[in-house]
Parts: sequence; C-alpha cells; structure tokens
Amino acid sequence: MLGRVKCAVAGFMGGIMAGGSSGGGCNPGSELPVKFPYMRPEFLGLSPDEIECSADHTARPIVILRETRRLPWATGYAEVINAGKSALNEDQACCELVIARRRPMSYCPPSTPSKTPTAKRRNSLPNGEGLGLRLDHSKLGEDSEGLVFHYWALFDGHAGWGAAVVASRLMQHHIACQLQAVIEILRNLSSLPPTVLGEEPDTNPYLQGNPPGPHRSLTRAASLRGASGAPGSPCNTPPPPRFYTEKKIQHESLVIGAIENAFKEMDAQIEREKQVFHITGGCTALTVVYLLGKLYVGNAGDSRAIIIRSNEIIPMSTEFTPESERQRLQFLGFMQPHLLGNEFTHLEFPRRVQRKEVGKRMLYRDFTMNGWAYKTIEEEDLKFPLIYGEGKKARVLATIGVTRGLGDHDLKVHDSNIYIKPFLSCCPEVKVYDLAQCEHGADDVLVMATDGLWDVLSNQEVAESVTTFLANCDPDDLHRYTMAAQDLVMRARGVLRDRGWRITNERLGSGDDISAFIIPLMYGNHQP
Amino acid sequence: MLGRVKCAVAGFMGGIMAGGSSGGGCNPGSELPVKFPYMRPEFLGLSPDEIECSADHTARPIVILRETRRLPWATGYAEVINAGKSALNEDQACCELVIARRRPMSYCPPSTPSKTPTAKRRNSLPNGEGLGLRLDHSKLGEDSEGLVFHYWALFDGHAGWGAAVVASRLMQHHIACQLQAVIEILRNLSSLPPTVLGEEPDTNPYLQGNPPGPHRSLTRAASLRGASGAPGSPCNTPPPPRFYTEKKIQHESLVIGAIENAFKEMDAQIEREKQVFHITGGCTALTVVYLLGKLYVGNAGDSRAIIIRSNEIIPMSTEFTPESERQRLQFLGFMQPHLLGNEFTHLEFPRRVQRKEVGKRMLYRDFTMNGWAYKTIEEEDLKFPLIYGEGKKARVLATIGVTRGLGDHDLKVHDSNIYIKPFLSCCPEVKVYDLAQCEHGADDVLVMATDGLWDVLSNQEVAESVTTFLANCDPDDLHRYTMAAQDLVMRARGVLRDRGWRITNERLGSGDDISAFIIPLMYGNHQP
Repeated sequence: MLGRVKCAVAGFMGGIMAGGSSGGGCNPGSELPVKFPYMRPEFLGLSPDEIECSADHTARPIVILRETRRLPWATGYAEVINAGKSALNEDQACCELVIARRRPMSYCPPSTPSKTPTAKRRNSLPNGEGLGLRLDHSKLGEDSEGLVFHYWALFDGHAGWGAAVVASRLMQHHIACQLQAVIEILRNLSSLPPTVLGEEPDTNPYLQGNPPGPHRSLTRAASLRGASGAPGSPCNTPPPPRFYTEKKIQHESLVIGAIENAFKEMDAQIEREKQVFHITGGCTALTVVYLLGKLYVGNAGDSRAIIIRSNEIIPMSTEFTPESERQRLQFLGFMQPHLLGNEFTHLEFPRRVQRKEVGKRMLYRDFTMNGWAYKTIEEEDLKFPLIYGEGKKARVLATIGVTRGLGDHDLKVHDSNIYIKPFLSCCPEVKVYDLAQCEHGADDVLVMATDGLWDVLSNQEVAESVTTFLANCDPDDLHRYTMAAQDLVMRARGVLRDRGWRITNERLGSGDDISAFIIPLMYGNHQP
Repeated sequence: MLGRVKCAVAGFMGGIMAGGSSGGGCNPGSELPVKFPYMRPEFLGLSPDEIECSADHTARPIVILRETRRLPWATGYAEVINAGKSALNEDQACCELVIARRRPMSYCPPSTPSKTPTAKRRNSLPNGEGLGLRLDHSKLGEDSEGLVFHYWALFDGHAGWGAAVVASRLMQHHIACQLQAVIEILRNLSSLPPTVLGEEPDTNPYLQGNPPGPHRSLTRAASLRGASGAPGSPCNTPPPPRFYTEKKIQHESLVIGAIENAFKEMDAQIEREKQVFHITGGCTALTVVYLLGKLYVGNAGDSRAIIIRSNEIIPMSTEFTPESERQRLQFLGFMQPHLLGNEFTHLEFPRRVQRKEVGKRMLYRDFTMNGWAYKTIEEEDLKFPLIYGEGKKARVLATIGVTRGLGDHDLKVHDSNIYIKPFLSCCPEVKVYDLAQCEHGADDVLVMATDGLWDVLSNQEVAESVTTFLANCDPDDLHRYTMAAQDLVMRARGVLRDRGWRITNERLGSGDDISAFIIPLMYGNHQP
C-alpha cells in the first residue's frame, strides 16, 4: 500500500531477514520479540537467499510458484516487491486446505458482541496450533472428523510487515475456529440452522399461544403495534394467542457470520499480542473460503476480487477507503466528537479553510449529504477535516488512506492522542458466489490482488489480459494459471525505462507491492 | 402506509372535511389550530362533495385528473383510498412548476450543519409565501428573474394526515429556497461552482506556495503524511511549496445538496410549528425535481420511483426500512445506548428471547454483521430488539416500519420516554437521471408511487402493465398517461369480491392508500 501510511521516523530493517527484535519499519528499537519472523508466502518455498533476491527494488523480479509446487485447484500466484517505498515486501499471501474439526464448544472462544461501546472482549484466543489443520491436497471434500475448506488470502501491510505476517499465519485458524461451533449444523443441509442450540423444535414457544419474554413484558401484555411482547404495551390483560414471527436463517448466513467474527477475533488477537510481541503496523485483508460448493469472499481494505466468467466481470468485493466510507466516518465523528480530539471537524470542505475566510460562505458536506452546499465559515471550521484529499491521496485524520483492516491499534495522529481506531474498522464485507449456479470452463477464474495491481489496471484490462493469456495456453496445462498471474503482475509493474517503470501506452507502472492469485473455478467440483 | 404505525388510541376524524381543531387521527382533542385543513391534491380540483365521495372505503373509487385539467408534461396521476385502515386518505401529492427567484442571501436561511449532536438549528423558515412561485404552464424554461423547475412529489402519511398535508404544501418552497442561494452559480454552466463565494479565482492560496490554515498549523508545518497543514506535523520549519488539493464540485452536486437540505428544513419546520399548530403524525417523502435537463429523485421512506425506458427498468430510489437500514440503526443504538432506554437491545435475534433461554446459545447479529452466529444468551438479551420482524412487519423500537421521513417528532415507544427520532431520519437519498443521455419515446416514463402500489406489484409487473397500456393508446393523446395511471392503480387495488379486494391470479389487492404519477420523459426537452 504505497504511500498509504508514511512513518514519521524513517525505519530501517535490521537486515532483510530480521528474526530478532525488529518486527517492522516503524519502531526498530523495540525490546519485545517478534511473533513471527519476516517471510514470503510459505507455499513459495523460497530459501533465505531467494527471499533476499526477491527484495531487489531495482530489478523487481516477479516471483512465481516453482514447477514442482502446486496449489489447490492449480491456483496461479505471482508477486513483486515495490520500487523502493519499503525495504521489504509488505504484502503477504496464504493458500491452504484447512480442516475445522469438531471440538468441545468451550475450546474455541465464541465471538461475543460488545455490550457497551467501551467494553473490551477478553476471550483467550488460539495460536493456530491444532485448530485448523492443513490437509494433504489429495484428501478432499468433507472430512469425517470435521469440515474441509479451501482458503486463499492476501494481506497488504503498511507501516511495517508485522501485522500482515501474523494475519497470514493465523487468519485461517480463526475462520476454522468460528466454523467449529457450527460444523454439525453446516453438515446437515436437510434442516435449517436452529435458532437455539440444544432445543427440540417442538418445544418452541412460538408455535404455542403464549407470548415469550421476561415478566415485565407479560404483565404489560402484547403491544398493539404488532410486535409481540414489546415494551410499552397498553393494557394489563394477557394477550390473545397469535402468530409470532421467527426468522429463518440459512446455512450460508452462518458461514458469513463465522468469517465476519474471525476478522474481529484476528484483530483482537493482534491487539492482545502486541503487549508481549513486537507486531508493527497494520494490513488490509482479503480472504476467499470455498466451503460446501460456495465461494465466500471477505474483504476489509482496498484489495479487490473479481470473477471473470465467459467475458463477464462479476465484482466480488468493494474497496473501503476514506471516500467510499466518508459518511460512516463522519457519522462516527459526529456522534462521538471526543474521537476527533480538538483538532478535527467531521465536516468536509473542498480544501482546507483559511482563517481569513471566517464569515465567508464555503462549500461543505456532512454525513447526511452526498451533494454540497454553502455554509458560513466559523472558527470551528478551521479544524482539519476528518476526511481530506481525493482518490489515492484521500486520508482519514490526515493519517491513513484505508478504512478497514487489521492491526494499527496504537496508530495515532502524529504528535497527538487521537487514535485512528475506531474510524479504522476490522469488519469485512462478505460476498457469496455459488459455484453450482453454472458450469465453469477452464478460462473462468477468480482474480484477487492487492491494490498495487488495481491502481494501474482496470477490471476490464485485467479481464482482457487474463482471458487473452489463458486462451493461448493448453487447457490441460496446470501451470497456465501461474503463467497468467505472472503475466498480469508484469503488466502492472511494467518495464524499467530511463524514466521509471512503464506499462502499455507509456503509463506509469505500479511502484507498490503487487500480489495476485488466479483461481480457476472449474475445479470447485472437479479436482485437477 | 397501512399498518405501519397504529395509534394506541383509535382516533376518529371530526367529520371528513375537518378544518377546525382536528389535524389527524391520533389526538382529536388538541386545542391548537391546524396548519392546513385536510385536502386532496390541489391539482385534482375536487369539490368538498367529491372529496367526501373519494373517501368511500367500500367503493374505493379511483380518482384521476379531469379532462379539463392538465399537469406539466401531460403527467398522469391516479389515487385510491385505503380499505378502511384510516378514515382519510393519508397519501398526499403535489405537482407544480416552481420558480426560485433571486433574493438577497439573508432572506433564505441557509441550512447549517449541527455542530454537536445535541445542537438545534434555530433559523427562521419560510411559509412558502412569495418564495417558490408557481408559474403558468405556458411559461417554460429558464426565467429571467430566477430558475424554473418542475416538481412532483408524493407523501405517505401515518398516524394522521397532518405532516403529509404540510409537506405537500411546503416542500417545494424549501427546495426553491435552498436553490436560491446557488441560482447564479447554476445558471453559469461555463465555470465550476466556486469553493468560496465572493472570492476572485486568482486569490486562491492553493495555487501559491504557502500552506493555508490557522496559525497552529503553520507553526507545526505541513504533515509528512501528505495532507497539508494537518495536525501533528513533526517539525517547526515552514514547509516547502507544494501542491494543495482542491476538490472540483459539479453543478449537479449543488442541486443534490439543495434537495438534501430542503428535506431537513422541511422537517425542522414541522417540528417548530407543532408548538403552535396541531400537526399530527409523520410521512414519507418522494420528490422529483427537473432542473436544467436533469431529473433529481429524492427519497426518504418506502415509496418508489422507477424509469421505464424501452423495456429497461432503471430504479431511481431505494426504500428505507428497518431491514434495509438495520446496520445504521444498530450502530446508532450501539454508539448511543441511552437512546434505547433500558428497554431495547441493539442486537438482533431471529425471535424474541425467553428468560428460560438465558445461558443457552442463540443466533444473533450486530451492526458489524450481515451473517449470523451463536452467542450465549445473557440477562441483557431479554430486552426487546431494536429491529424486530420481517418484511412489511419489521419495526424499529416495536413502533414504526419506515426509517426515513418527515414529522413524528413526538413519536415515542408507547408508555415510555424513548423517542423514535433519531432512528427515524429525515435525510433523503438523491439519484440523478440526465434526460439528455438519450432520446426518449412517448412510452418512456418515470413511475413514482407510494408503497400501496409496490406492496402488491413488482417493478417488472408495473413496467409490463404501463408499457402494454401505453402501446394501445394514441401516442398523441395527452390523456394516455392519466389513463395508464388509472389502470395501474386499479391493478394494485383489484376488484371487490366476497372475500376482499383481489388482483390477478387471485392475489390479495392492496388495502393501503395508493397514489401514482406517470411522467413521460420525452417532454423534458419538447413541451407538449
């Protein structure tokens, strides 16, 4: 995420393979040990020498899978380091087959919602050992002891590689952990998930006459407003028997909920472990889970996933940026002004307000508006805007250019006590794609990549590149997706000329870290 | 909005033409005078007798324009009263040509954003006299003294007709009022709206080297994070000259902002005038403004507008309901728990929780989730859910089934001190359609209608009905859109059989008030 967060103190890695006290670029002097050493994706199988070579900012070699290695579904992968912005490649990737095993419920901490805005969750959390177990590729489908899912993920780090490395090692275990609680339910597709666990369906009071609810609701009786047992019911006699609504929740919703809560638990673990380990910075997270015939794409940040299916482009994620999330952020700042310190205003102006403009009328908009109007400038408006800048230069609190992701718990506005969280949220958006909805050919793929790719190539350009490339490959060559990923990353990086990295039509190539998976969809039901 | 808000005390109109002390259904004993008497849309030109006939809940006559009357663009309109839910038709409609005249700025109060969550705006506001002036239909296009716009609107009242009548009389003047502040700018399409009013472009400091901003920012100097003059800059030397971003705002954004602020000012006026007039209930608002070649559709509530253009359906609004706005409402309840009193929880459960279920695991979701997960039920979860029910039965705070609209300032959860505002918001979403983007035929129309129509007919069914009906009319017959509106309302109301109102395929007809405009798009540039 080039230029998204610049560290005020320029950090320098303590050797490219720093495994000791340095866990990122911003705080090289930390006395704490690192949680995990710096790495490239495990599936690449790079030696220390190769990792060092991959970090050559001048040559910017594109790293791909060796021919001897293969990812599930013959997935293609390629990556390249940035053009000098950070010493190391702050993108991380993961691709695994994971099994969520049946376990006693108490082992895996459920994600519980906060009761008050300030409450903190104190659950203990897994370190990944023995929870989500990686499987041999030959062992596929449902496992007798649990549930198998395919997993691909990209994490784009900023202000250090610490959070991205931790997330790339542990996120899949958090997903497995959340799925564990619902394994039996997900395996039993013949009946809908029960509202309450451990209750016989026919004891459900909603099929009986009497309204449920606490004593107070009973004495107040049912509301006239159509909601059973609602507060403020107007009389004291028991209500007549009536129909009580009960939402039917689909299996798919449980998987979405599990992924949503896994992101929150991953973030909470980073927060906790920062107390005892040196974990720097933050990262975006884009995960793909294939489970029981469906792809679940979870996104928190500005990476992107699209499906390319016979010349059609299906967006599978939306980016979370200061511009796309302006109204949520302004609303939060409006509701909780203390989060803005005394330095920021939740209002947006087309540019910074000058003192001499107080009393004049200037364009503005607040959280209720998509349009703009004029307001008379007051002293208060001289504060810096919560959201400022346009496009890739847009920032929240003048600090960060992405509004969802993991880590960054100690990130503050420089020289202030204003925290970037909770403006920065770890909650993903999850989109679902049912692979059974149609037959997929060898050229139908899901492309997921960090913003380094999408900054310079449009969805259309990516789709054309991949489609054209695959059309020229042997459909039976299992390396075709790796070659296509390499081609795609090359198109975004470009070639080095005297005036920098250039791509087609003399446009500037991406100077950011770039990582891309190309996942063929036909293998969802037919393993290669 | 049948069944959307039922009043605990059944109200009865003091005569169908009540013009005295009764302003709605819920508080017949109010001593305050009404702001406006009950009415049907002015453009219908109904006599008192005709208004009384139109309120026959058994016959449910469909009311259309007389042949002698014509709306701008030959717009079609039809309405029908509900099947007995309320004594009067609580829908209201308006269609006018309005001129926003140039005026001294101070005359029209600008909408100013609140500085703190509790701050109230105290601007004085217009009563509509002399501000937005209706024009003769023959006088079209830009007016030398101001700006002419076409205006269509539907207001769907609940818990009384008071707010809907006030909004149908005054909303257009609030829009005119907001547009007045930008008339000169909107008329000058050759240059973008200025960021600051009354400033020469070349005095803009953002083209110079020195950063703007208050003294503090100057001494702290420019931030290293890319945002000029941001708080927390790390050194004390003046920054080097650099490029300062300034957003370019389009004319269209000013119109959107004007409509957004007009809704807020309309709502604020209702709140103020409830102190001196008897104005009952609340209403949704759907407005269409045609200005300088573009249609601006503003929506707050569950009415709907679609464009039907050569067999294509273009949605021009989205509905705001407890289900569509769940995450916003839950977020608000989470951030400001006092708004929930001690009676509601911001969490959602598939059904009401019973006391005996404390300690068991039940499905839930919070404002961060679209999926569902299990949580252990606690005492706290016995509170009534903020959002409860499904589809048309979904309610906020067990009280109201719509989450955007005007009025309802004193609406509380029954027998409590919990206000429905600010969960109920008056802020609209505004969508824009450029009529110049293509040539429109005589059968290309915008259909806008209250939820009574859309509850029983899908977009597709409406489009097919209208297209088929218009295809069988003489393209030069200016009454064809009125006839089409009548046909549409009839299809949604159905016919009275022994077992109630029935539409095609023996489905239930709508028992709600139904109002519909059919606006031909070809007249945007060619007046009939």
